[in-house]
Amino acid sequence: MAGSLKKFSVIFEGVGVATGKMRNDIAVSWPMMNEHFELATDEGPFHGGDGTAPPPLALFTAALTGCLMTQLRAFAKRLDVQIHDLKVNTKLHWSAEQEGNKPYVSMPELFTLDIEMDTDVNVSEKIALIQAATKGCFIEQSLSDRVKVKHRLKDNSGWIEV
Amino acid sequence: MAGSLKKFSVIFEGVGVATGKMRNDIAVSWPMMNEHFELATDEGPFHGGDGTAPPPLALFTAALTGCLMTQLRAFAKRLDVQIHDLKVNTKLHWSAEQEGNKPYVSMPELFTLDIEMDTDVNVSEKIALIQAATKGCFIEQSLSDRVKVKHRLKDNSGWIEV
Repeated sequence: MAGSLKKFSVIFEGVGVATGKMRNDIAVSWPMMNEHFELATDEGPFHGGDGTAPPPLALFTAALTGCLMTQLRAFAKRLDVQIHDLKVNTKLHWSAEQEGNKPYVSMPELFTLDIEMDTDVNVSEKIALIQAATKGCFIEQSLSDRVKVKHRLKDNSGWIEV
Repeated sequence: MAGSLKKFSVIFEGVGVATGKMRNDIAVSWPMMNEHFELATDEGPFHGGDGTAPPPLALFTAALTGCLMTQLRAFAKRLDVQIHDLKVNTKLHWSAEQEGNKPYVSMPELFTLDIEMDTDVNVSEKIALIQAATKGCFIEQSLSDRVKVKHRLKDNSGWIEV
C-alpha cells in the first residue's frame, strides 16, 4: 500500500535585542505550536562580553546534537526500533582567516557526530535509522555541502562510518 | 600597509545523553576557552516530549540570530562604527515531505534576517558591516547553498535587501 505524500512547513521566529556589551536576548517562538522560549547568547570576557549566557556556537552545538538525537528517537518508533540508550558525541570544527585586524571570514571544516545506540536491532538496521534521522533533521539538511558531516556508529568492533 | 594573514580554528564539542522521553541533556564545551555549558532540548507533548526545554530548532533560531548580532557588534568596533541599538527579527522556514507514516525528509526553504541598526553611519557603511558580519558568522557560513538566506536592513524609506 503506497502511503499518501504530504508536505508540511515548520516555521520558527526570533526577535533578538542587543542588551549587554555582547549579550543578545532572543525571544523565539514556534507559532504553529503556540510555543515561546526566552533565550540568550553572550560572549566571555576574552571576546568583550560578560559571560551571562552561552555563546551562539554553544547553542548551535546543542541544537545540532539534539536535532539528530530527537529524530533518531522519533523515527525509531516509526521504524519499530526500540532504543534503550542513546549517546551522541559531537565535534564541530570551523576555521577563520583574517588579514591584520580586519573582520575575519569563517568557514566550516568538519562536523563529526559519533553515535552510541543500545537497541535490539542489528547494525544494518541501526545504519538505516541513522540515515533516516539525518535526512529528517532540519538542521543537518540546512548545512552546506562544503561542510564534511561525518556520522559514526559505535559497534562491538569499533566505529563504523555511516 | 598589508596586514599579515592568519588562520585560526574554532572547535566546539558536545556530549548528548537521551534522558526524558524526548529530552536530551547536552554538555557543550569550548575547550580552547575552557568554557562549559549545560544545555538541553526537549519536545512538547504533541511531539512526545515533556516540554522541559526548548526544541532543537528554537536553540538553532537563537544561535543563528545571536551569531549575526554578535558579529555585527564585534566587527562594528573593527570598522569604527558605533552601534547605539540593534534588533534582529529572524524567520526560519523549513518544509518536510512525508509518505504515509514513514520518516519524513526535511529541507530548508527561506531564512530571513531583518536588521534594525541605530548608528551614526550612512546606509552603504551599514550594508558593508552587514556583509562583513555575514561572512564572519560561523553559522551562516555553514548553511547550505540550497537555503535562501535573505538579509534586509531597515532604512527610513523601508527595507533594503542587502
